Amino acid sequence: MTLPARAQEPGTTTTIHTEGAGAVRRTVLPGGLRIITETMPTVRSAAFGIWSAVGSRDEAPADAGASHYLEHVLFKGTARRTALEISAAVDAVGGDLNAFTAKEYTCYYARVLDSDLPLAVDVVSDMVAGSVNRPEDVEAERGVILEEIHMRDDDPGDLIHDEFATALYGDTPLGRPILGTEESINALSRDRIHGYYREHYVPSNLVVSVAGNIDHDEVVRLVSGAFAEYLTGDAEPAAPRLDGAAAPVDPRNVVIDKDTEQAHIILGGAGVSRTDDRRFALGVLNAALGGGMSSRLFQEIREKRGLAYSVYSYTAQYADSGVFGVYAGCQPAKAEEVLSICRDELGKAAAESLTDEELERGKGQLRGAMVLGLEDTGSRMSRIGKSELVYESLLPVDEVLARIEAVTLDDVRAIAREVLTAPQALTVIGPVGDRDFAA
Amino acid sequence: MTLPARAQEPGTTTTIHTEGAGAVRRTVLPGGLRIITETMPTVRSAAFGIWSAVGSRDEAPADAGASHYLEHVLFKGTARRTALEISAAVDAVGGDLNAFTAKEYTCYYARVLDSDLPLAVDVVSDMVAGSVNRPEDVEAERGVILEEIHMRDDDPGDLIHDEFATALYGDTPLGRPILGTEESINALSRDRIHGYYREHYVPSNLVVSVAGNIDHDEVVRLVSGAFAEYLTGDAEPAAPRLDGAAAPVDPRNVVIDKDTEQAHIILGGAGVSRTDDRRFALGVLNAALGGGMSSRLFQEIREKRGLAYSVYSYTAQYADSGVFGVYAGCQPAKAEEVLSICRDELGKAAAESLTDEELERGKGQLRGAMVLGLEDTGSRMSRIGKSELVYESLLPVDEVLARIEAVTLDDVRAIAREVLTAPQALTVIGPVGDRDFAA
Repeated sequence: MTLPARAQEPGTTTTIHTEGAGAVRRTVLPGGLRIITETMPTVRSAAFGIWSAVGSRDEAPADAGASHYLEHVLFKGTARRTALEISAAVDAVGGDLNAFTAKEYTCYYARVLDSDLPLAVDVVSDMVAGSVNRPEDVEAERGVILEEIHMRDDDPGDLIHDEFATALYGDTPLGRPILGTEESINALSRDRIHGYYREHYVPSNLVVSVAGNIDHDEVVRLVSGAFAEYLTGDAEPAAPRLDGAAAPVDPRNVVIDKDTEQAHIILGGAGVSRTDDRRFALGVLNAALGGGMSSRLFQEIREKRGLAYSVYSYTAQYADSGVFGVYAGCQPAKAEEVLSICRDELGKAAAESLTDEELERGKGQLRGAMVLGLEDTGSRMSRIGKSELVYESLLPVDEVLARIEAVTLDDVRAIAREVLTAPQALTVIGPVGDRDFAA
Repeated sequence: MTLPARAQEPGTTTTIHTEGAGAVRRTVLPGGLRIITETMPTVRSAAFGIWSAVGSRDEAPADAGASHYLEHVLFKGTARRTALEISAAVDAVGGDLNAFTAKEYTCYYARVLDSDLPLAVDVVSDMVAGSVNRPEDVEAERGVILEEIHMRDDDPGDLIHDEFATALYGDTPLGRPILGTEESINALSRDRIHGYYREHYVPSNLVVSVAGNIDHDEVVRLVSGAFAEYLTGDAEPAAPRLDGAAAPVDPRNVVIDKDTEQAHIILGGAGVSRTDDRRFALGVLNAALGGGMSSRLFQEIREKRGLAYSVYSYTAQYADSGVFGVYAGCQPAKAEEVLSICRDELGKAAAESLTDEELERGKGQLRGAMVLGLEDTGSRMSRIGKSELVYESLLPVDEVLARIEAVTLDDVRAIAREVLTAPQALTVIGPVGDRDFAA
């Protein structure tokens, strides 16, 4: 177990471990800014990311959507660059510049050829550290975000995920949509957005992560230069969110009558938190239930009966909570039948666990997907950056593979019994009138 | 220029060229089956694909959707494997097994760890060569495809692309949706699907492409074994589609009044064909107009005015035709304003071409995106497989980069004048009543 960053002397570098041909290193700069890198000597590109430990669950109801709104505004200009200069710099080298906001963090990243890394560091660091958040830019971006909300509303397969979060967590930080609402977005002032930026975008809340054909010391030099004026004080890197009391769930059934072709359905309940040791067993269970084409739900609902095109199960993890859910889109007249098959399959898995073959296949699926994902600089950058932010230490790939390998049928049986028999929320969107879909 | 596959002696191997550390090789087997591979010695994975030279534009109106329907049915079982055995084999090693159908080709692929390549070859070849297309499987899959159509209908940002193709090409093979229609899918019989399979899935119509940490001779051995009983006769590899008379366009305005939050808009017309030398100049023009965040349309519509979240231009190429289009999603009340900005920007670019800076940025964007994309085994497999199928010879990466570099402002001016002033089709989906949006 590597020391957490906040126990590391500012200005020093630690080699966290080496993986294959590459090494993972961390440097902590004054002010608590962390830099974590992974060398991939066989590629010719680099992914550069800056992670902020703020997301929608940090928002008071009146600030709903502020984290994501701010993410947009950071593209609008700094003291040194206009919005056009930001995007033109990365477009000119064919790089990919983007960002995303989650419930517990926000990430800004650029993927570029390795020779363009200095440019990526300069542009993304400038956006994150030097945003000016001009009132007219905040105003213009309000319209963009309202259109993003409308676009989400027009795609029921997207909307249902937000509705399900609310059905499970209620009107709480984990239950509210990352995008906010039309009302909350219209109410957020420039000063509020700017204050939110000043409060959360401080060096101790940020992690810089880089993966690719890079040199750690060179990255530290570039980032130190880009953040120079902010790297003051003796703040320690922020600790991860507390893994304390579990976020309360309050599962309800939400049926939204809407004039769509399909009924879109999510059924699910509480899963496990990000640090829960049982997450590997739940991963195997999820693979076997609805994680691939050979999974039970895919076989029963799509292969055998042709009832759905899209049907899958999924998990989500947060600091103190998690989700296990099942999605299906089907003919409105078949919604009860599909739901009944889902409930049967979850019930059967809770009562009887998996077969030996499903256990092995589920492990293989998690292993292969992980290893295949690691050939991409973006995936590696995400893995080390997110780990540093939310776990405080990185589980080496070999250790993750060993944990997957160690999962037993008993582990899966135990987690299935707990997760699949927990109270469930249900969300249906479609032309379903007042049908209630109760079990 | 490499010899086309049909001029290559069956049973022989040609080294097409070497790129960086890797080499691209082609072997032609008896019956006209082509195998093209690219070695990527620094990765630990392999992408294996089989391309068939059939797509929705090969369908008579009564067969509309048959190519895609058949693609689904090929997952349902062979003489040696059930649907579950097909998917379980690849899931067990954490691979990614999938397929897609386009207007001019269909591709089946698996991405796996390099040590699992023999499994991927065996499973995907068996699916493609040995499908039994049992009546009950064809029946079950009919429901799945109808749900895929319904899902497309529920996402206006997806639906509008199919509607636009019809608005531009009319009721012709290029204008009809790849998915078919509810009516055509309901009318397709098992015998029709099976006949379509027997007709089109013959070795001379297929290209096997593989990229990753692989050995060409080993791939040839594996594929020869998997296809053994089919590799007979002296058929030559099929030639690419004729680049003859351009597919006729018949641009119309199609306005669909629908109860959505946004107005979804596509405006566009004929672009250039896949073999047109001007495609590189059009690529640069597309980048500058709507290909990135620094593009004119993104700047004018999103950055300056906040009118849309999603706004972009795009191109598509076919054997004898192509498309240049612009998409935007906006408030229904702002549709005329957004459309007017689009028309202004297209008109300005047609009249004045680009600035030197935009030319250079556009080139950099194409270059970088291409090179960054080539780190992925899946992208490389696609590039060589699709090239072999539709071009008959592979343009080396260096040659593509040189062609991009050679684009001049005059080239862009010429293609802008032609493409941006051509008759345009317009499609709008949204709560827009009978507004006609004529220019």
